[in-house]
Amino acid sequence: MLTEKAGRIVAAHKLLRRSRRTETGEFLADGAQAVREAIAAEADRPGTVLEVYVTETAGNRNRDLLRAAFAAGLTVTQVTDRAAAALSDAVHPQGLVARCRIHETPLADVLAAGPRMLAVLVETGDPGNAGTIVRLADATGCDAVVFAGDAVDPFNPKAVRATTGSLFHLPVVRVPDTAQLMAELSSAGLAVMATSGAGDLDLDQVEEQGLLELPTAWLFGSEAHGLPEAVMTAADAVVSVPIYGRAESLNLATAAAVCLYAAARAARRRPTP
Amino acid sequence: MLTEKAGRIVAAHKLLRRSRRTETGEFLADGAQAVREAIAAEADRPGTVLEVYVTETAGNRNRDLLRAAFAAGLTVTQVTDRAAAALSDAVHPQGLVARCRIHETPLADVLAAGPRMLAVLVETGDPGNAGTIVRLADATGCDAVVFAGDAVDPFNPKAVRATTGSLFHLPVVRVPDTAQLMAELSSAGLAVMATSGAGDLDLDQVEEQGLLELPTAWLFGSEAHGLPEAVMTAADAVVSVPIYGRAESLNLATAAAVCLYAAARAARRRPTP
Repeated sequence: MLTEKAGRIVAAHKLLRRSRRTETGEFLADGAQAVREAIAAEADRPGTVLEVYVTETAGNRNRDLLRAAFAAGLTVTQVTDRAAAALSDAVHPQGLVARCRIHETPLADVLAAGPRMLAVLVETGDPGNAGTIVRLADATGCDAVVFAGDAVDPFNPKAVRATTGSLFHLPVVRVPDTAQLMAELSSAGLAVMATSGAGDLDLDQVEEQGLLELPTAWLFGSEAHGLPEAVMTAADAVVSVPIYGRAESLNLATAAAVCLYAAARAARRRPTP
Repeated sequence: MLTEKAGRIVAAHKLLRRSRRTETGEFLADGAQAVREAIAAEADRPGTVLEVYVTETAGNRNRDLLRAAFAAGLTVTQVTDRAAAALSDAVHPQGLVARCRIHETPLADVLAAGPRMLAVLVETGDPGNAGTIVRLADATGCDAVVFAGDAVDPFNPKAVRATTGSLFHLPVVRVPDTAQLMAELSSAGLAVMATSGAGDLDLDQVEEQGLLELPTAWLFGSEAHGLPEAVMTAADAVVSVPIYGRAESLNLATAAAVCLYAAARAARRRPTP
């Protein structure tokens, strides 16, 4: 049973830091839900999971999950409660963590496949919001989720937790240069919709004009500052979620939910050609 | 300038606790956005704001807001940074707090007015989620928001903050007896839609069947346990947000956003009779 002082635990603990994740190309998926989805992803893409760490208590509580890990040929290592706590930044660590390989998909590959819908986070800073939007992108059938500019690291432990496993379900793309991203989205024939509390069009108008029918990249900004001015200028439209009552605005994750679902539901209503 | 030891500050500090709010019928609205909306509400309903507490720094930063407070004839009290911190449970207190009167609306009054859409929180425990749903209810033009059973107190400081002022925009109703609430919603002719990750119908089917046209009470449950079994049985339908991709579920606030906006947008699309 490894303690928090064992070399492998000390090394894995460092993956809570972004710099270490960048160096190694590895990250930690924390909690039963994330570990279950990581193991399931291993079947499609061997090498996703490098090692599973589990406490005795968590092992007894998640026998089916450990069976799946063994069946997939994964290394399962029993660790002490303190070692498990060292691998988590959660307030209440669950005692179950997978060390995983970071898989990023090049933007060119995503665009070459003719995507119908992309979720793009530009400068989004809060890991909980970012993870929630990855979960929404998965729920609405987005073809990929793009993290652009100085957005939070999608493999940040809080972000991974907020995705509740969806991080393993769809391609994750990182594009540091937002201007280049804008150009490539347009070249690929995607309608680029910038979202803002003060848009030129609201979502009802976008729908009435038939724009929800188009293959679209939906851009979401930072909690505090929204999208950069240059992004709004380069976008095909700046879209607001309509406010029918007296609320001043919506928060980022609920606005993203409304936009992505409106688009996904419009796509479903459209008769297939 | 009042310090944290002044009697009025000590008394107001106790309003961070539910028991004290219940005794006094008062609560604290924390931060510039909430205080601004509280002052605006004072015009419609004199007696909403009992006192505004402000630090020197916050006062300099929010001069227009203080002008509005004076214009409304409100008592504005300068306080020290530590006094302001004692009136807030935020990690970074903004130095601006309003002590307000709790206004609750009886359910009978809300139902007598022939509401088109209600948001109902049953056993919802997290104040941030509850406040976010109040904000959504306001944004979508709900006629009121109902807190049922053992739900979090809508006047909890974190909940108030998450409403970003919407708490002052629509009637708040509390009904401790959920069974009685269900009976009254039905008697009032409202379609009662229980939301669940595992519904009998999904939102697309609800829309296809024309059910989004009806005056509706939308019921949301607790983050961990969803809605009580008895509520799902008593409801007219149990509705899910459809999952088009591989995500297992949505979180409470994003699911509420999708349901309330789908209903509000359907109502807007409907030609007026």
